[in-house]
Amino acid sequence: MDATEQTRRTAHAYGELLDMRDWPAWGALLSDDVVYELPQTRERIRGKQALIQFNVEYPGDWQLTVRRVVADSREAALWVTFDVGDDSHDALVWLELTGDGLISKITDFWPEPYDAPAGREHLTDRS
Amino acid sequence: MDATEQTRRTAHAYGELLDMRDWPAWGALLSDDVVYELPQTRERIRGKQALIQFNVEYPGDWQLTVRRVVADSREAALWVTFDVGDDSHDALVWLELTGDGLISKITDFWPEPYDAPAGREHLTDRS
Repeated sequence: MDATEQTRRTAHAYGELLDMRDWPAWGALLSDDVVYELPQTRERIRGKQALIQFNVEYPGDWQLTVRRVVADSREAALWVTFDVGDDSHDALVWLELTGDGLISKITDFWPEPYDAPAGREHLTDRS
Repeated sequence: MDATEQTRRTAHAYGELLDMRDWPAWGALLSDDVVYELPQTRERIRGKQALIQFNVEYPGDWQLTVRRVVADSREAALWVTFDVGDDSHDALVWLELTGDGLISKITDFWPEPYDAPAGREHLTDRS
């Protein structure tokens, strides 16, 4: 299996095993010194154990669905949907993997809805 | 050149030619019926001419820098930085290409900073 295919499978498993809260299997995808960053809050979590704990403690009965994966050698981007009750959010996750195929860096973006700026209604419609 | 390499070059050019405001060259990357979506505002723009016009009219002396590209067959994800004056924002752009290598669908996310939720300081540090 080439690096891109391995990365693609790991990216899918990252989302699916997180949704299943299968912490041993999810943790096996990560390097021990994985770094997880949330650029919007400037938070950073260092290490597999802390990152598993972060997800174990994450509030709400959330469900995560993998919408799209692009993989290229040892990098991937995931587009996932994160649902809690009636709320649904998109999240965009960037993964960097080691040569052995373990996830060493995760960058997680959580874009929130915002009001459409005025002055461009002549070019846009709304979904 | 294989599809992934062609997509990778197109994704880089998408960002670089947009930054250069080279509308003829940027437009040549797009299919005539390209669809551009902003999920956060639910805005949609249909067609190459409207999308070029949207960017021509976009306010501010903005500069765009391509930070990362992941390309996979006829899909790509770009992570770009959008700078206006002293403000810097990340944007995450998902591209879908036709079999001929033209961009047919663009989904653009603009994550904004938000306050770190309380209760996870024991697991995080701040950058």
